[in-house]
Amino acid sequence: MLRKILIANRGEIAVRVIRACAEMGIRSVAIYSEADRHSLHVKKADEAYSLGSDPLAGYLNVHTIVNLAVATGCDAIHPGYGFLSENPELAAACARRGLTFIGPSAEVIARMGDKTEARQAMIRAGVPVTPGSDGNLANLDEALACAERVGYPVMLKATSGGGGRGIRRCDDAEALRHNYQRVISEATKAFGRAEVFMEKCVVNPRHIEVQVLADHHGHCVHLFERDCSIQRRNQKLIEIAPSPQLDEAERQYVGGLAVLAARAVGYTNAGTVEFLQDRDGRFYFMEMNTRIQVEHTITETITGVDLVEEQIRIAAGLPLRFAQHEIQRRGFAIQFRVNAEDPKNNFLPSFGRISRYYAPGGPGVRTDGAIYTGYTVPPYYDSMLAKVIVWALSWDDVINRGDRALRDTGLFGVRTTIPFYQEILRHPEFRAGRFNTSFVESHPELLEYSTKRRREDVAAALAAAIAAHAGL
Amino acid sequence: MLRKILIANRGEIAVRVIRACAEMGIRSVAIYSEADRHSLHVKKADEAYSLGSDPLAGYLNVHTIVNLAVATGCDAIHPGYGFLSENPELAAACARRGLTFIGPSAEVIARMGDKTEARQAMIRAGVPVTPGSDGNLANLDEALACAERVGYPVMLKATSGGGGRGIRRCDDAEALRHNYQRVISEATKAFGRAEVFMEKCVVNPRHIEVQVLADHHGHCVHLFERDCSIQRRNQKLIEIAPSPQLDEAERQYVGGLAVLAARAVGYTNAGTVEFLQDRDGRFYFMEMNTRIQVEHTITETITGVDLVEEQIRIAAGLPLRFAQHEIQRRGFAIQFRVNAEDPKNNFLPSFGRISRYYAPGGPGVRTDGAIYTGYTVPPYYDSMLAKVIVWALSWDDVINRGDRALRDTGLFGVRTTIPFYQEILRHPEFRAGRFNTSFVESHPELLEYSTKRRREDVAAALAAAIAAHAGL
Repeated sequence: MLRKILIANRGEIAVRVIRACAEMGIRSVAIYSEADRHSLHVKKADEAYSLGSDPLAGYLNVHTIVNLAVATGCDAIHPGYGFLSENPELAAACARRGLTFIGPSAEVIARMGDKTEARQAMIRAGVPVTPGSDGNLANLDEALACAERVGYPVMLKATSGGGGRGIRRCDDAEALRHNYQRVISEATKAFGRAEVFMEKCVVNPRHIEVQVLADHHGHCVHLFERDCSIQRRNQKLIEIAPSPQLDEAERQYVGGLAVLAARAVGYTNAGTVEFLQDRDGRFYFMEMNTRIQVEHTITETITGVDLVEEQIRIAAGLPLRFAQHEIQRRGFAIQFRVNAEDPKNNFLPSFGRISRYYAPGGPGVRTDGAIYTGYTVPPYYDSMLAKVIVWALSWDDVINRGDRALRDTGLFGVRTTIPFYQEILRHPEFRAGRFNTSFVESHPELLEYSTKRRREDVAAALAAAIAAHAGL
Repeated sequence: MLRKILIANRGEIAVRVIRACAEMGIRSVAIYSEADRHSLHVKKADEAYSLGSDPLAGYLNVHTIVNLAVATGCDAIHPGYGFLSENPELAAACARRGLTFIGPSAEVIARMGDKTEARQAMIRAGVPVTPGSDGNLANLDEALACAERVGYPVMLKATSGGGGRGIRRCDDAEALRHNYQRVISEATKAFGRAEVFMEKCVVNPRHIEVQVLADHHGHCVHLFERDCSIQRRNQKLIEIAPSPQLDEAERQYVGGLAVLAARAVGYTNAGTVEFLQDRDGRFYFMEMNTRIQVEHTITETITGVDLVEEQIRIAAGLPLRFAQHEIQRRGFAIQFRVNAEDPKNNFLPSFGRISRYYAPGGPGVRTDGAIYTGYTVPPYYDSMLAKVIVWALSWDDVINRGDRALRDTGLFGVRTTIPFYQEILRHPEFRAGRFNTSFVESHPELLEYSTKRRREDVAAALAAAIAAHAGL
């Protein structure tokens, strides 16, 4: 078993990995920029080392991180998500320096990171993909021809893209002409590579993704699906496991597809195969994320499997502890990404000092976060403050529990997405379990919440108080 | 369904009931002494009313509480645990005023609260009890004769006792002579009744208790057992569900016994039947607690059933939603009662201001509490600050998770039982799942923890840091 792990990340996911290490008796090493000096991951790790004053450079420097891991006697690196997690160079550098990289091989990361290569691997494996370009587009003319062939609307995508960036929808030839150069320059800026490809646009799909685990002994299993259709501008906001929109046959089918996809590329460790599901129920491979995901928590909650522990065990060379039929799920879980954003002000980031924070508690509530009373949220990183995860036996109960847990979350000093999520939970279509990726955009009334409800509550309480004291 | 509930309690159990109300769309009314003005239950309820400056009198005043419930338009009262929860007068007063009491009938509370009457009801129902006096003892001579008959050691118990008070063990006639008058005066002081009875002492038993739910339509089910053997002076410290010490046949047998006991007395609502298990595996009825218990959380965690919600549904007249075979359990749960006590100083209460509090989080961790950063723990109530509940699929994993969650709990300003619990978790007998109610007393070395381990950790971290920076 591994003895000491450097966590090449920050914030909540670093804390998550530290917790798994603590439970496994593994020593944890944190790294931090000076902007993160007061982050909880620094306090919770067994050791912590500064990467200097630049808020980002250190977290992105393969050389510094690998050297630090070697110098501190670590035998492995966990990359978390974001930063270097899907950069094959970190995995390759680990291999060269005799460190265990807790993730798949550099080759698999590179292969799945190249969206056209991944797409071709899926076609060969028999995993359905949307019609589109057979590889990268050479120029605008080829793009226009491809779009004519598969039919508008089409999606123009950066080959190295991910996380919702480097993607544009084009509804007609004019839009395609307008966007072609823009996506290329976006891709160049964000990912350092200019290649783009095209896929037929699946209109208003559901986003269904499947968690897989694969060891180095030929075993691969799935842990059911997550429904991540509640998004805004391709950023996931609320995730649900299992999807209330799939029946059992669909569930088994898409789980099997994900295992097929993972096997086809020789995948190892934890990964996620993302699919779009169209209005007729057909699934199309979208991409594979070769890392732990933000929303892994809900899969843990319904299956009882600790995915980070399994990542570490697999990386250490151990075989999976369970066969597919031994993985059981129970009830429903929902994760809310509590972001420091003002929904009513176009989701503008709202960084600053958290004057008070009370985590929610009670039955069926889990929190993952790296914030605390008095913590100042640095403006250099993403705006997610905490994840609130709720569980209950039934869909109706988990919605009510989610509403309660959000109300239970005391977070003052910054604006958050909590009231927006409460509106979503109260929406009849959401409660009926009917939504796709257009849900947020097609319901602008979700933003029309106000402090009115709260004022009414106060008025009612006051009236009751007066009545009570009169009656006593 | 009920519309508005007054919670006749304080602190964490009041918060727990408020959470259930919030999930069910029921309005919650809190009550508080002035000492509790800043308690979380006051902040979280929809309405809150002061009971005046006496820290205890208000919480114990049936008349005030029932009047307040009527005046504020409540249709029900939830008593929580402690205070008036097992006082038949509150249940009776609710009935008289047209309020729903969320618990069993006043008659059943009175009957099970009288330990000799409860014992006789169990004998009639065929539930095994320890040999002892057939009813209350008339005088010391009768006590001595009874002890001769059943054999020493014997337990002398207050008939109205509970919660570990009013109980003395007598190893011989001399001890019995010494203790007889003491238990009577203790009982008179604590419970206002002087009656005592005798039971043969089960030496070093396990404390095994079974959660039951019974509705008003003749349905009664159990939700498996809890092992509460980890006690100190009859006060539970750590509770486990299910017991790692029972096999499946024992589990089914004791569950069935509990249902038999509940049916025999016409029980309704949530209740707990407590048993002692001797070294030969025999179970003996000890008592029935006619209320929600502190440790109900671990049963919720393994079964997924929200016991407070079920209490409310049953009180509202709804039938149980599940038959016995539909109640499934999964994995193991442990609850730690985080008390403001100094274990190294004879568990002296350690009240004061909580300068910082970080709740633990991550997979398999639940917290129930009413504390927050800046909260001053009032000295008038019990010393429990919070409950940390952990869950995992296996016994080994839940122990490691418990250790991690306790380490994860940041609680500064008062001394707590956390380091003592960590010692218990690391003890080989506990890890092997072998312990009885003498565990804590027979292992005084559990108190010999020191800050040494922490100092060694710091030294190792420093050494590593120096090595690392030299190597970079």
